[in-house]
Amino acid sequence: MAEILVQALPYIQKYAGKIVVVKYGGSAMLNPELKHAVMNDVVLLSQVGVRVVLVHGGGPEITALLDRLGMEPTFVDGLRVTDEATSEVVQMVLAGKINKDLAAMANEMGGRAIGLCGMDAGMIKAQKVKAAVDLGFVGDVSHVNTAPITLALEHGYIPIIATVGTDDSSHVMNINADTASAAIAAALGAENVIMMTDIRGLMRDMSDPSSLISSVDVSDVPRLIEEGVVTGGMIPKVICLADAVKRGVTRAVMIDGRIPHAILIEMFSDQGIGTLFKGGMT
Amino acid sequence: MAEILVQALPYIQKYAGKIVVVKYGGSAMLNPELKHAVMNDVVLLSQVGVRVVLVHGGGPEITALLDRLGMEPTFVDGLRVTDEATSEVVQMVLAGKINKDLAAMANEMGGRAIGLCGMDAGMIKAQKVKAAVDLGFVGDVSHVNTAPITLALEHGYIPIIATVGTDDSSHVMNINADTASAAIAAALGAENVIMMTDIRGLMRDMSDPSSLISSVDVSDVPRLIEEGVVTGGMIPKVICLADAVKRGVTRAVMIDGRIPHAILIEMFSDQGIGTLFKGGMT
Amino acid sequence: MAEILVQALPYIQKYAGKIVVVKYGGSAMLNPELKHAVMNDVVLLSQVGVRVVLVHGGGPEITALLDRLGMEPTFVDGLRVTDEATSEVVQMVLAGKINKDLAAMANEMGGRAIGLCGMDAGMIKAQKVKAAVDLGFVGDVSHVNTAPITLALEHGYIPIIATVGTDDSSHVMNINADTASAAIAAALGAENVIMMTDIRGLMRDMSDPSSLISSVDVSDVPRLIEEGVVTGGMIPKVICLADAVKRGVTRAVMIDGRIPHAILIEMFSDQGIGTLFKGGMT
Amino acid sequence: MAEILVQALPYIQKYAGKIVVVKYGGSAMLNPELKHAVMNDVVLLSQVGVRVVLVHGGGPEITALLDRLGMEPTFVDGLRVTDEATSEVVQMVLAGKINKDLAAMANEMGGRAIGLCGMDAGMIKAQKVKAAVDLGFVGDVSHVNTAPITLALEHGYIPIIATVGTDDSSHVMNINADTASAAIAAALGAENVIMMTDIRGLMRDMSDPSSLISSVDVSDVPRLIEEGVVTGGMIPKVICLADAVKRGVTRAVMIDGRIPHAILIEMFSDQGIGTLFKGGMT
Amino acid sequence: MAEILVQALPYIQKYAGKIVVVKYGGSAMLNPELKHAVMNDVVLLSQVGVRVVLVHGGGPEITALLDRLGMEPTFVDGLRVTDEATSEVVQMVLAGKINKDLAAMANEMGGRAIGLCGMDAGMIKAQKVKAAVDLGFVGDVSHVNTAPITLALEHGYIPIIATVGTDDSSHVMNINADTASAAIAAALGAENVIMMTDIRGLMRDMSDPSSLISSVDVSDVPRLIEEGVVTGGMIPKVICLADAVKRGVTRAVMIDGRIPHAILIEMFSDQGIGTLFKGGMT
Amino acid sequence: MAEILVQALPYIQKYAGKIVVVKYGGSAMLNPELKHAVMNDVVLLSQVGVRVVLVHGGGPEITALLDRLGMEPTFVDGLRVTDEATSEVVQMVLAGKINKDLAAMANEMGGRAIGLCGMDAGMIKAQKVKAAVDLGFVGDVSHVNTAPITLALEHGYIPIIATVGTDDSSHVMNINADTASAAIAAALGAENVIMMTDIRGLMRDMSDPSSLISSVDVSDVPRLIEEGVVTGGMIPKVICLADAVKRGVTRAVMIDGRIPHAILIEMFSDQGIGTLFKGGMT
Repeated sequence: MAEILVQALPYIQKYAGKIVVVKYGGSAMLNPELKHAVMNDVVLLSQVGVRVVLVHGGGPEITALLDRLGMEPTFVDGLRVTDEATSEVVQMVLAGKINKDLAAMANEMGGRAIGLCGMDAGMIKAQKVKAAVDLGFVGDVSHVNTAPITLALEHGYIPIIATVGTDDSSHVMNINADTASAAIAAALGAENVIMMTDIRGLMRDMSDPSSLISSVDVSDVPRLIEEGVVTGGMIPKVICLADAVKRGVTRAVMIDGRIPHAILIEMFSDQGIGTLFKGGMT
Repeated sequence: MAEILVQALPYIQKYAGKIVVVKYGGSAMLNPELKHAVMNDVVLLSQVGVRVVLVHGGGPEITALLDRLGMEPTFVDGLRVTDEATSEVVQMVLAGKINKDLAAMANEMGGRAIGLCGMDAGMIKAQKVKAAVDLGFVGDVSHVNTAPITLALEHGYIPIIATVGTDDSSHVMNINADTASAAIAAALGAENVIMMTDIRGLMRDMSDPSSLISSVDVSDVPRLIEEGVVTGGMIPKVICLADAVKRGVTRAVMIDGRIPHAILIEMFSDQGIGTLFKGGMT
Repeated sequence: MAEILVQALPYIQKYAGKIVVVKYGGSAMLNPELKHAVMNDVVLLSQVGVRVVLVHGGGPEITALLDRLGMEPTFVDGLRVTDEATSEVVQMVLAGKINKDLAAMANEMGGRAIGLCGMDAGMIKAQKVKAAVDLGFVGDVSHVNTAPITLALEHGYIPIIATVGTDDSSHVMNINADTASAAIAAALGAENVIMMTDIRGLMRDMSDPSSLISSVDVSDVPRLIEEGVVTGGMIPKVICLADAVKRGVTRAVMIDGRIPHAILIEMFSDQGIGTLFKGGMT
Repeated sequence: MAEILVQALPYIQKYAGKIVVVKYGGSAMLNPELKHAVMNDVVLLSQVGVRVVLVHGGGPEITALLDRLGMEPTFVDGLRVTDEATSEVVQMVLAGKINKDLAAMANEMGGRAIGLCGMDAGMIKAQKVKAAVDLGFVGDVSHVNTAPITLALEHGYIPIIATVGTDDSSHVMNINADTASAAIAAALGAENVIMMTDIRGLMRDMSDPSSLISSVDVSDVPRLIEEGVVTGGMIPKVICLADAVKRGVTRAVMIDGRIPHAILIEMFSDQGIGTLFKGGMT
Repeated sequence: MAEILVQALPYIQKYAGKIVVVKYGGSAMLNPELKHAVMNDVVLLSQVGVRVVLVHGGGPEITALLDRLGMEPTFVDGLRVTDEATSEVVQMVLAGKINKDLAAMANEMGGRAIGLCGMDAGMIKAQKVKAAVDLGFVGDVSHVNTAPITLALEHGYIPIIATVGTDDSSHVMNINADTASAAIAAALGAENVIMMTDIRGLMRDMSDPSSLISSVDVSDVPRLIEEGVVTGGMIPKVICLADAVKRGVTRAVMIDGRIPHAILIEMFSDQGIGTLFKGGMT
Repeated sequence: MAEILVQALPYIQKYAGKIVVVKYGGSAMLNPELKHAVMNDVVLLSQVGVRVVLVHGGGPEITALLDRLGMEPTFVDGLRVTDEATSEVVQMVLAGKINKDLAAMANEMGGRAIGLCGMDAGMIKAQKVKAAVDLGFVGDVSHVNTAPITLALEHGYIPIIATVGTDDSSHVMNINADTASAAIAAALGAENVIMMTDIRGLMRDMSDPSSLISSVDVSDVPRLIEEGVVTGGMIPKVICLADAVKRGVTRAVMIDGRIPHAILIEMFSDQGIGTLFKGGMT
């Protein structure tokens, strides 16, 4: 163990004091072993001096509760149509159930986590998403008040963030966790944003693991979309990672959340895993 | 207005920098005008330098969601029997819905509120209530970690607290908000704990408003129970207010939440309202 | 009272943490009820988080002591001709009598006030006023050392300032309190400077109350002087208010000190009272 | 000069960071060269890291102004009978003239001095002196609020203090500067209190310089009074020095203010000058 | 690697913010691989939040330089007889060569180390060892000024300490590093003191590895010496470890410095290695 | 003494809080009285609020130890050719002997000194001097990490610095103390750098004391070299003083270390001593 720890030293030094935003979602939220590994990674990073912020989604649990309540979920282009009743369910599941369960799990592991959402201290201001179809209370991040996040980080707490916010009329808004994590990372001046997905990363040929693209300059993103390398639900994820880089985040990485401890593997190895987006401010 | 403000000055000075814990519940949570008045009071107190902590319940909303989910609530001696499914609903409604809605409302009024629950930073540790009947995941406060509350107060935030905590085995525990508010007040060394109820205060004769007992020495509480002045659901409320006083809180007050701005009236007048419990440490 | 307090909340929030300089003078210094109301306003503002600085004059009391000492006061264009003996009297009355009496009154009301003058910590440096007639030891502010004022404000004290300073040769200089308050406000980067006078504000027709000019853009001040709307002793007052605005003070207001609590009425209402000078830095 | 400075080093080190209260009065206030030397000493001490507090009297200047005003001073047992009109004159001369002049002189020498009196921030609370004859507004120190003094010292300012305070009914009280300086020294936990007088110190035989008593244990003071070594106006001075020692001041020294730089000579030599009172807390 | 790191988490949490004093000596100083491993361990501990202090000896290098200078080392009971010329060599080798080389090595690994000795800021005061034979400038620790060590730790530096100090007459004193490390640990209120030796720990039978005594209550130390389990050069080491425990250090451990990363193995495992001395304050 | 101290006041005020770097070397290191005077000056400056940094050489002591070890020193153009064995001796003598002896002497005088070298906290990074002949491990300063120096100064310690550093390959490098002191002064933004030499200063005619050049604008340095006023070993000294001025140091002074208390004389008089280099940033 000692040898391994010593090998980890340069990576610990590299990230010490830096802010890393992790978007937690997908299979890694459903599988208990993966969930345990993710929270272990987060608590460890916090303990060794990384300022880690955990942003989470929770689609399947929202759908499950809507189901139990006899409410039919509707999606348009991967975004949930959110009427007021649905919005209430989203808020309860994200900010009340998943968020606090994650905080409690981190605390049980010896971490010091606090569960917040965008409604706390006006942390996430959103405006209604403009779409062909009215999506209801679905918002894009218009402003992040970083003060409560920074206060928590400076005092050694791990902020765990549920992505519900409010608009200018104080409506509760449901916000996509991918875009929220990228916006939060950019607002915090984070070093890294790590997005957990259920794929290995960008691949030229989805059926060929060897075609993984390990690194992309953000200026090449439009071309990758044009060429059909990035398609469907991957497009908004890739765009918000690229945006984070353009707004100053050094490393924006799409990792495979199905691999245990993927976060540590990405951060504590030279080659990383998944696809790194880089380039950015010139 | 100026005259009134100047009359308020001595009371503002009296509480400046002091910690006041408000237990928010009952009718004042259901009536929108009362809710607005309560949050206005809380934001005002925070603005003029009082360190106010809001602890809330939410029974009716819990019952409503259980109802929609086809789950039958069971009560024993006024305490909700809480199996795992119920506990999940309690957590979602208290920590996810009511708590965050109150935070958002305070923020909309220009306050700076953060919604926390006992699962954040291990803030409230609980142990299973010992009762004749197994109440399930219902707990008594065994420890309050005041660090996150104090951090919030010191940076000008209003902590709004939902009373779900964890036991030593990391089970989520439902905690009565009356006892939690008293325990939090004692742990914080609060000056005041103010408990909102749906009665005018303790009365010798419930049908005679003039029989209101405006002040009680905590040493007289056992006698009042014995004499039947305090009965039924009032008994645990009175006991925990008395306990708060015994543990160092200067003023523990039971006020009538049905009166708009009852909190301000209690704090910003010489006579106060409701019933004051005092005495305490000797 | 609670309703009124809650209505005051937005104004309290508006000025919280901001610096407001009040020039105290005129009738409001002579009438005991008005004096009490002014000090009440100042202590209240300080208590609710406004950083209030009180700058005062004291002409009538100076004249009274000169009189008792058999010294004949001489004025040229509203400025007191100040020989060394007169300067000594000015200093004693302003810095020793009025200043300390006001501090004691504020402290008696529960405020925490400290009486300073421009001779403390080299706070106000002045240079001899250039005038057709030699005015003696009468100075214009050449520099304000804001350090002691800021230190006091940061620790919750109300600085009360008598406007005697020193020139480069360490002579004690008598400084007009109107110009001093404007200079202090500008040096502190104050939000507001409020000048108490014995008129309702600027009026197109002094005999017609309805002709009050409630708001003036500072660029219009020269025209108002030219048109004879501003005349005589009002001219220097208006010029120094306009200068304060040009140097970054957001609101410079001339109010009627004969109205009790005029300061609170100006700050805690949307329409204010008196005449507001605004515009400023472009 | 270098040799001298280096010889001073051990004394500078001895007092670095310590609080020294100097009671300034007598001939040293009247003679301009002595005054210059005193202020030079004070500014130097402050500059080399001693936390020096200057407390001053001003009897002759008070008498002079009373004289000019045609008011007859009355003394009983060395204490000025102070009616309201006299009290006003005392306040103006002490807090307005002498205090601010000393502050300005220190600032001119490159020091950073602030002139305060007991009316600032409720610094000195007094109660009417009990005497056979009614002395009017003459008080003994009942409480010293050290907060403003400590704040000034911590930020490198030299507090210069005029000994007028207020009683519980907010009357301005004239306080003897000797007793005030001893009370302030005790309240501050000062290392030294140095009282400037117009005698060499205690002497067994006033006509014999060689009879100077260089050191007295405070337990011997009653005997010295009984034996007539301490007589007349010296008695209250000696008693308050002894009291300061009993309340924890390490060195209470009576020095000869007629000697230029007597303060430095006392502090920066092994033998000191004048009479040292020591002993104290057991 | 991720799995290993996560396994290390509880140990990292256990020691986070705690002070650990490591006495570095013996074979681990001579073998370059071991030296590298020790410094790696120290830098890693510092990086993950342990406040580690490294105290070192250097006998063989001292002997080597004495040899080159033609000076004959003399030992009495394991303590070097130290005349003035020898003392100078000890100081140069310990404080000038080994100490600074270790600091440079730590810095090269990304640590932030500062090399100090007991002569810096009067850090170690010593008094001449009382022995049958005059040992010259050999001292026992009489006082540790922890201020510079604490300052370094609080700012993230690793203090590396060479054990030369001064006596009351400002003579340079050579101090045994074992006793110095124990004294420093006690003065700092350290959690752990870890002493690197060239044996596996205390053993009932030196030839039987299975006879290792893994844990000793300090009250048993006299008996172990009496029984001959602790003999010769081990006696002073064991006594100073026991003393550290008696003065409040929680764990005092004798480890085998010949094992790579013995420090991490001791701290990051439940069973530890070597012999633990515990018990202590009652 | 008091008179002298008061005369020193303006100079103490002038340098209070300012950083002054003293290069200590030459005769003043060899003569015990001069050494005592230098350390007295340094401790005094520190005590009266000057942030003094002492940088020292030690050539003669290095040569003496090389001699005892039978090693032949070699110099090229005044720079010591430094092979690995020599480098080790330099490090031991400078960082282990002289540095710590100076720290101990300052501490004995009541100062609070810490001995550091460029190997501590990566304080001085160097690169191999480029010369016609290979000088071995002799370096020029490439970077100064001011953090540990500033930390020490802010906490009232006197940093004493031995000029050994490391290059990018972690070799120990011997650095000329003149150039190091100038580089450290520039990196710290020092007010003064004072270089002790064994001459009176720059002189037009070395044999004529009256030809001392008391002040030189740095733009005139090339001309002075060209004209032969500055020659031989003086050239590098003068160049690095001029460089310090160009990089922002206000006063760079070459003083005669043979005069006792030359540092104080330079700083505490209007005319100073030696030759002042000024001009600098335009």
